[in-house]
Amino acid sequence: MTNSIEITKAKTSKIQDVDFENLSFGKIFTDHMFTCDFKNGEWQKPEITPYAPLTLDPSARVFHYGQAVFEGMKAYKDDAGKIWLFRPEDNLARINKSAERLAMPAFPHDLFMEGLKKLINIDEDWVKPGFGNSLYIRPFVIATEPAIAASPALEYKFLIICSPAQSYYSGDVRVLVAEQFSRSANGGVGFAKAAGNYAAQFYPTSLANQEGFQQIIWTDADTHEYLEEAGTMNVFFRINDTLITAPTSERILDGITRKSIIQIAKDADINVEIRPIKVSEIVEASKNGSLKEIFGSGTAAVVSPISAFSHKGELFEVPKQDDKYSDKFKNLLNGIQYNTLEDPYGWRQSI
Amino acid sequence: MTNSIEITKAKTSKIQDVDFENLSFGKIFTDHMFTCDFKNGEWQKPEITPYAPLTLDPSARVFHYGQAVFEGMKAYKDDAGKIWLFRPEDNLARINKSAERLAMPAFPHDLFMEGLKKLINIDEDWVKPGFGNSLYIRPFVIATEPAIAASPALEYKFLIICSPAQSYYSGDVRVLVAEQFSRSANGGVGFAKAAGNYAAQFYPTSLANQEGFQQIIWTDADTHEYLEEAGTMNVFFRINDTLITAPTSERILDGITRKSIIQIAKDADINVEIRPIKVSEIVEASKNGSLKEIFGSGTAAVVSPISAFSHKGELFEVPKQDDKYSDKFKNLLNGIQYNTLEDPYGWRQSI
Repeated sequence: MTNSIEITKAKTSKIQDVDFENLSFGKIFTDHMFTCDFKNGEWQKPEITPYAPLTLDPSARVFHYGQAVFEGMKAYKDDAGKIWLFRPEDNLARINKSAERLAMPAFPHDLFMEGLKKLINIDEDWVKPGFGNSLYIRPFVIATEPAIAASPALEYKFLIICSPAQSYYSGDVRVLVAEQFSRSANGGVGFAKAAGNYAAQFYPTSLANQEGFQQIIWTDADTHEYLEEAGTMNVFFRINDTLITAPTSERILDGITRKSIIQIAKDADINVEIRPIKVSEIVEASKNGSLKEIFGSGTAAVVSPISAFSHKGELFEVPKQDDKYSDKFKNLLNGIQYNTLEDPYGWRQSI
Repeated sequence: MTNSIEITKAKTSKIQDVDFENLSFGKIFTDHMFTCDFKNGEWQKPEITPYAPLTLDPSARVFHYGQAVFEGMKAYKDDAGKIWLFRPEDNLARINKSAERLAMPAFPHDLFMEGLKKLINIDEDWVKPGFGNSLYIRPFVIATEPAIAASPALEYKFLIICSPAQSYYSGDVRVLVAEQFSRSANGGVGFAKAAGNYAAQFYPTSLANQEGFQQIIWTDADTHEYLEEAGTMNVFFRINDTLITAPTSERILDGITRKSIIQIAKDADINVEIRPIKVSEIVEASKNGSLKEIFGSGTAAVVSPISAFSHKGELFEVPKQDDKYSDKFKNLLNGIQYNTLEDPYGWRQSI
């Protein structure tokens, strides 16, 4: 790496104004941010600066054509005060994969890792210890070129901003199985963390919210017969003692929590099936009592048990389970993330 | 309308620096812009101000989740110096339809029309007379709320910016019929001018560009057997003397130029078929000589003849035609737009 990161520290910290016991997700940001501009075909001087508004021309491409990708990741503090990241290189690989699909430039590995770690070190007081507490990290890239031609921008900004977080979901999560709306098409951008994939879910999800469901489980756009993902989570089904999840595809996000769970499950000798899942199969399993669990997985939610799903107007409750896979996976993942358990996988990285 | 528009004029104009004979599309903007913020559940005081950068928090929803919609429209100046708009209310209706699908608030009709006309009046010197010259107008709405929760924003900004334009396309337009990538899904947001729909096309289109094609004609994501739209244009096919275009759907934009052409064609006693079109039908028509024309329609392009298409590696040239429908439609539309012909439809509006 040729460019060293120029660091300008905030004169004062906002941290004393923050109520860390009552955080809304993603509303409060730490004192600093990492930024790096792309122009003239290359990434320019990287900077860590006080968290501050961006100044962009109204014609900046991101406002018009949604040329923007992002990642979600977390930093965890152990009881000794040491801070850990979870598979951060996988986030970089994925943001670059997302960027490629949106005709955006890749961000360099070493610069990402260095910027990320320096930023978190500077704002280390914002990472609170204790299960559930974390620093949510949002790397993102936006097209900044001031011109509204419908073509890939020549200028971009890569940023990392950080927000202190508690557990993302609380209480029962009830989901609606999509029957009308869709999240992604074959040959589309569903596998990418492309900004536009998320706005497209807001309206159907708000309709579901009005019916008392927190999330939608998306189905294939062609037939609505196959279960895919929940938009902010991948989804797992436990039928008897078999764990089933849909294969990743160009429509489904390659979730880092998802693949970690698959690995943990296999190593615990749980039978894992990665294959297309029909809605009818889960309805049938619910009716005959073999459906034991449904849960979502994602960085924000970690593991999020789903207590009921609705399909074609019929509500299916998932029975309470004593020895839940979701608890096992959450405990193992949290143990690795918070450095209270061995990490046989090398997923944990100190900063 | 309760709020009157607060107008702050630019101290100096940039217009003398502009080479109106050599304009790149969408790079130069006029001296003023119209803006209106949405917060606390309603649209706030509308303003016309000097064109200037926007200041947004890095956590503004638009950067992360692509909650943004836009429109494209034009103002035309006739030889007497009078300025005309073309079906502007249809643009407002469509941006509000797009906004609804992205869980964004509708913008009020009267405020839109007043803001639009006042803005163009103030920047009237930027509208140059003569066929091909126009003022490209870009209304758009972005989610500005500074919080990265994956849910609809509570704060938005509506803007209108304007850019002087010459003809959009020049030379031959050759298109690639999509066989792998897709633009939109059933139940998705393809019908909306949602920002994310455009970024998603950049990568496949850049691959097509490398093969010598300017645009992609998108096909249905399921089978790639049906022709849909070109991403920035709707598409028409002329087989013998019949004009065929795909029906609008949740995947296809309800183009204002498209529906104007359909109306003009019907009134000229041209047989118009609005129905699904198989790629195989057009390939067959090309082979047997009955394919007379292909052209795209859109605000930026108006009517854009397509000289060849490629499908499964085979190139099909569209034969040169003396008495082209596309010329007829372009001349009629331009005549209405530039006030050189009667407008029996009431499409033209003076400002």
